[in-house]
Amino acid sequence: MTTHVPIVLLGLGTVGRTLVKQMLETRALHRDRYGVELKVVAIADSQALYVNNDGLSAESLEHVVRVKQDGRSLRDVVGDRPSGSLALVLTEDAIVVDVTASTRTEGVLREAVACGCGIVMANKLPLTVDWHMAKGFFAYADLRHEATVGAGLPVISTMRSLLDTGDCVRSLEGCMSGTLGYLCTQIEQGVPYSKAVAQAQASGFTEPDPREDLGGRDVARKALILARLAGWPLEMSDLSIEPLYPQSLTGLTVEAFMTAATSLDDVYRERADAAARKDQVLRYLARVSPEGGAVGLTAVSRQGLLGSLQGPANYFGIYTDRYEQEPVVISGPGAGPEVTAAGVLGDIVDLASRRIR
Amino acid sequence: MTTHVPIVLLGLGTVGRTLVKQMLETRALHRDRYGVELKVVAIADSQALYVNNDGLSAESLEHVVRVKQDGRSLRDVVGDRPSGSLALVLTEDAIVVDVTASTRTEGVLREAVACGCGIVMANKLPLTVDWHMAKGFFAYADLRHEATVGAGLPVISTMRSLLDTGDCVRSLEGCMSGTLGYLCTQIEQGVPYSKAVAQAQASGFTEPDPREDLGGRDVARKALILARLAGWPLEMSDLSIEPLYPQSLTGLTVEAFMTAATSLDDVYRERADAAARKDQVLRYLARVSPEGGAVGLTAVSRQGLLGSLQGPANYFGIYTDRYEQEPVVISGPGAGPEVTAAGVLGDIVDLASRRIR
Repeated sequence: MTTHVPIVLLGLGTVGRTLVKQMLETRALHRDRYGVELKVVAIADSQALYVNNDGLSAESLEHVVRVKQDGRSLRDVVGDRPSGSLALVLTEDAIVVDVTASTRTEGVLREAVACGCGIVMANKLPLTVDWHMAKGFFAYADLRHEATVGAGLPVISTMRSLLDTGDCVRSLEGCMSGTLGYLCTQIEQGVPYSKAVAQAQASGFTEPDPREDLGGRDVARKALILARLAGWPLEMSDLSIEPLYPQSLTGLTVEAFMTAATSLDDVYRERADAAARKDQVLRYLARVSPEGGAVGLTAVSRQGLLGSLQGPANYFGIYTDRYEQEPVVISGPGAGPEVTAAGVLGDIVDLASRRIR
Repeated sequence: MTTHVPIVLLGLGTVGRTLVKQMLETRALHRDRYGVELKVVAIADSQALYVNNDGLSAESLEHVVRVKQDGRSLRDVVGDRPSGSLALVLTEDAIVVDVTASTRTEGVLREAVACGCGIVMANKLPLTVDWHMAKGFFAYADLRHEATVGAGLPVISTMRSLLDTGDCVRSLEGCMSGTLGYLCTQIEQGVPYSKAVAQAQASGFTEPDPREDLGGRDVARKALILARLAGWPLEMSDLSIEPLYPQSLTGLTVEAFMTAATSLDDVYRERADAAARKDQVLRYLARVSPEGGAVGLTAVSRQGLLGSLQGPANYFGIYTDRYEQEPVVISGPGAGPEVTAAGVLGDIVDLASRRIR
């Protein structure tokens, strides 16, 4: 017997499209292993909504993915006519999946909580707004959000499991940005800051404006999500953030910034050299505890797991009552559409397999 | 509303006793978070069985733990009269928990499968017998066995999640023995083999006869469990095992072995030195792929996560289609009653929270 689990998918960027492909590829597996079939009943991008209560066919989904891949909108598929109502598909057995990077999904997500839907987020924004707005999500038992931190790495599920067994998280530390990890390794190997940034940008490791990564806010959001999951009601303002460029370069165009970045080469060269003299290396580290946290360039021992981290790999160290001296460590590639979509799909399967008993 | 989930606990060694304490301590948490109450309806050691269909009270459980801690048997609590029948408590909603290190639980576990119970194992033996006997367990959807490998570290759950999202495991590598990790670090730091073994024994890191750890069979069992979970129907005979002492020292008493061990000091000193000349360090590494595997002392680069591992910490690297170049890494303390019991409890809570919908 196969149970159909309705899926409402918000967001059709690279992660959303990869997720659709993975869902189609794993249909037989979920049917055989859990007796579950994921049935996409609604998909949305920023411009349109496509609803089909009977579930969109594989052909329809593949068509939508192709259209989006061509840079067009979902509107080109559904036209201007409303194809259905989101309210009608927000049933208790449905799972709402937010793979946008938008604040505009918040209303739907709150409705989903009210309806008792499962919720899966890759979107960090609803979880990093002011605590009085976000706490409802953290208190909601049927929310999963593995892909918000470390993409497919099992960071959130590990913390949940520790907390479920009565352990108490004391502090967290991590290298949560592949881009900034790459940058640290390059500088360590003698590449000037400006050149390393340019390389990262050219390789597609950064946002079109590299300052969005260098600013550290995205890392801080991840640290805040982990802190709140640990049970600490912190705000973004409780985290100090060291951006990897000075305030004075904020107003420039991207091109002008890339040119001006050469003025920072010596600064970061000297910091790396100072660390090396103490047998240390620089890591863009986030550290957080119940009192607050700090995100920034930190010198750590060259020995040890953190110091031996190379390139874009992520690292998470979780210190708890039971793992007091030595943390639980999770490490590996923490970005990219394939592993991010897999993190989302893992959450969907977990919730779906719980919905069939 | 609280749903009672009957628990059948097999084994009252240190892990079993720690588990009972953790279950009692986390009662309120499970009630509040999942609406679940774990109700121990039967416990057993190697000599007796204590059944109470209404659930043993906290006082009874604490009494049993004290009796066992004093080195006495459960028989001293229940007497010789049979206190009830195990068959009657193996209901579909029950969870059978095997924290023994015995082959004698296999019959009950097979009955539990037939009854549709949830099953949680810390016991490696039922999963490492011949494949035709073990495969029924691996195929059973309601089996969890996190604590069989890496104690409380999320190794099994991570592999399950990767497989659930359609990823394919290609190979696995790991340092799966805290004892042998400690030994490697000591030898690396110049301590002679025989002294390092004696220290490990004195610190309680080894079995009373250290050859049980040094022989590598326990590591091979863990590697076999991971291989089978990955979908490869391997046998123990498909793994080559390098014991850290020669065949000639097998027949000796423990005392005679400890004396004779000095004859091995030069052997391991030379291997460590040879590795160091290539900027490598020795790790007791298990490597396994669909074709088979090897467990033994391996020289690895001093750089990188594996080389930077210190002391008894465990390490697991999982290479998959999606994590092809860089593996998912899970590392941390992988032994001890607290974290092992927590691994078991995490599995119980996972199954219990699925049983209430």
